[in-house]
Amino acid sequence: MKNTPIPYDIVKQKIAESGLPKVGRATIREIVRLVNEIEAATGLKYIRMEMGVPGMEPNSVGIEAEIQALRSGVASKYPMIDGVPALKKEISRFVKNFINIEVDEKNCIPTVGSMQGGMASFLLTNRCFKEKDTVLFIDPGFPVQKQQLKVLGMKYETFDVYNYRGDKLKAKLESYLNKGNISTILYSNPNNPSWICFSENELQIIGDLSNKYDVVIIEDLAYFAMDFRKDLSKPGQAPYQQSVANYTKNWIMLISSSKAFSYAGQRIGCMVVSNELYKRRFPDLKRFFSSDEFGYAMLYGAVYSLSSGTCHSAQYGLAAMLKAANDGTFDFVESLKEYGAKAKIMKQLFVDNGFQIVYNMDEDKPLADGFYFTISYPGFSGEDLIDELVYYGISAISLVITGSEKTEGLRACVSQVQRSQFGDLEARLKQFHTDNPIK
Amino acid sequence: MKNTPIPYDIVKQKIAESGLPKVGRATIREIVRLVNEIEAATGLKYIRMEMGVPGMEPNSVGIEAEIQALRSGVASKYPMIDGVPALKKEISRFVKNFINIEVDEKNCIPTVGSMQGGMASFLLTNRCFKEKDTVLFIDPGFPVQKQQLKVLGMKYETFDVYNYRGDKLKAKLESYLNKGNISTILYSNPNNPSWICFSENELQIIGDLSNKYDVVIIEDLAYFAMDFRKDLSKPGQAPYQQSVANYTKNWIMLISSSKAFSYAGQRIGCMVVSNELYKRRFPDLKRFFSSDEFGYAMLYGAVYSLSSGTCHSAQYGLAAMLKAANDGTFDFVESLKEYGAKAKIMKQLFVDNGFQIVYNMDEDKPLADGFYFTISYPGFSGEDLIDELVYYGISAISLVITGSEKTEGLRACVSQVQRSQFGDLEARLKQFHTDNPIK
Repeated sequence: MKNTPIPYDIVKQKIAESGLPKVGRATIREIVRLVNEIEAATGLKYIRMEMGVPGMEPNSVGIEAEIQALRSGVASKYPMIDGVPALKKEISRFVKNFINIEVDEKNCIPTVGSMQGGMASFLLTNRCFKEKDTVLFIDPGFPVQKQQLKVLGMKYETFDVYNYRGDKLKAKLESYLNKGNISTILYSNPNNPSWICFSENELQIIGDLSNKYDVVIIEDLAYFAMDFRKDLSKPGQAPYQQSVANYTKNWIMLISSSKAFSYAGQRIGCMVVSNELYKRRFPDLKRFFSSDEFGYAMLYGAVYSLSSGTCHSAQYGLAAMLKAANDGTFDFVESLKEYGAKAKIMKQLFVDNGFQIVYNMDEDKPLADGFYFTISYPGFSGEDLIDELVYYGISAISLVITGSEKTEGLRACVSQVQRSQFGDLEARLKQFHTDNPIK
Repeated sequence: MKNTPIPYDIVKQKIAESGLPKVGRATIREIVRLVNEIEAATGLKYIRMEMGVPGMEPNSVGIEAEIQALRSGVASKYPMIDGVPALKKEISRFVKNFINIEVDEKNCIPTVGSMQGGMASFLLTNRCFKEKDTVLFIDPGFPVQKQQLKVLGMKYETFDVYNYRGDKLKAKLESYLNKGNISTILYSNPNNPSWICFSENELQIIGDLSNKYDVVIIEDLAYFAMDFRKDLSKPGQAPYQQSVANYTKNWIMLISSSKAFSYAGQRIGCMVVSNELYKRRFPDLKRFFSSDEFGYAMLYGAVYSLSSGTCHSAQYGLAAMLKAANDGTFDFVESLKEYGAKAKIMKQLFVDNGFQIVYNMDEDKPLADGFYFTISYPGFSGEDLIDELVYYGISAISLVITGSEKTEGLRACVSQVQRSQFGDLEARLKQFHTDNPIK
């Protein structure tokens, strides 16, 4: 029996009880459950890096606005399908202030999280042309978006962008686009799980190809303004959150409130459709919707059918936070910088103990420190590494489930790890390194 | 130019401006918009019966529980996909107390309104068997459920139950079921728009056929406990809300909070899956989900993909109202009775002025007075009747869009009409009757 930071026999027993054939192959939620049980049985605290949840409290302006809306009686009244005017206005201002893109208030639609925003988007973008029935993911990415397509009975293709950064991206994308079946390209930026951020050159390539092949770009901005190498916090002032919207008119943005505003619990996000795409007509949409106008079909077809709109009070909560950010009275980026600060320290601790950062460059620039980073250890597959680290009180997920080809890699999320745990993290990594000397 | 209660020329002008070819063929939301504009232009108030929205405020116990949850920090935390334990527990108790059906807490799942509950249900029930790919609606019904299937690219069939009440229902249903393509039967009870309530005999027929043909019944209980002919308000005491669950194990209930708890704004409903269906395995589900277990695929396939669960604070709000109803400290039916009381008076005003009630019997019993009733006027089609009534300050929708064969009929909703308007209603109906003498 090995002498590990978390008692070996208890971990072994809990793994056996879980019924998991291999911890390294478990889903995020299965790992969460297993670690919960080991923590309860041992009284010891893990360095928990498996789940991408916000690690801070939201600004009180959102909570207070929700409470005021509830007291004013919104709970009994159906919200308008397209969102309350106050929120639509602030989303439009937010897109202008922080991305420097103009979009009509009409085209700013609250959704039940970006999860619903993605679902609604697929229902439209993948059906605008009969022959274009496939979504292309620039991976690695969020596994549930692929699950959404499977649930809808829709097709997708995917590639790992690791070997296709910079100018190489163009030929790689065209190898898919020139087949004629791709309707949509989706990526997240900053990227979950690798934390790569596309360069302006890469975004221009994507935008140009969107125009050339008439393909909709869904830009998943779940980690809005979290490329901390630049100061993206000033409304109406450069630099701005990067976006493909500077290079094409054919886009949908999904702006989540979960991480940028720590509002994951209320399930509210923003789907923003470009002015041009919103009013464009696609006769093939009539197969599934009463209207062939993209925006009308999106609202009264997809969004209405999915849930009749978004929680009324939550709309007022988000509107208040966006307004404060737009007015410059609330610097929503400031508190998020703690994620980057923790990542910098944690990455160093891993590197000092023999680990490597898997995705480590944006073309010629070192990767930003942010919500996630990726790690590997010589001689271990990603699955085996998770299997082993669990005895050392460290939990993460395998990159394989994110569409990455880096089978040796793990995704580590910083949000749930407290600075007070850094001592534990260092000691555990040291022991791991000692127990597993690199040959 | 006619002398009508609402100035003829203004109504005519607003109709022209609306661009609607025929008011009687407009959607609910188009009528809402038109009437809003006429009211604004004339300063006159309509008898608004076009939209099924709650007409009262929710019990404060829900609002206060939401506020407390927000203050305690739920906004930043992802809700569990399957719902917070406190809510799951109260849903299960509620089903036992008010329907007298046992169901595990595990199988009680909050959804973003019954709209999402329906969408999630279709994603499962219509895919359990490859050959069963069609939903059968016992109509008339809620048009958006058919739209949901169109958006999903799924098939449905439908018939108007008007001529198939009682024992005749069996042969009619079997004429569909014995074709082998029906996966699911859906109806609402009490019924939107006709307010018919199935008899125990009819529910038994549906339940027996569900067993014989292995078909899932989706019971849409949007108007829970609103058959005011019986006192359904006492937890744990007969009589109970009627349900097909007394006759089959093959059911899903959709229990909306919008009308029963006047909580439409917060978009929260309950999807309840029978213990037997929840754990049943359907290999054909693997085409769309990672698991072939109905309940697992429902949660981690459909519900997760649609929105990652339901607004966190709203779950606590609904839990508190259900708990109060279960504990007997809040009689949620009492305040709803006002709908029935208004319906009784309004129906009489219509009948006194030459109108007829279209759906008027439950087998041998007079129909209940509730949230909706249906009307027609001799010599008018439903569309023409709406066209004409709009000049008399009365708005409603055509039954045709609900799958009814009664093309002469309108649906009238009582919730937005105030008792103080009954004088106006009577005067307007009298004038309409005088202006349109029955031949």
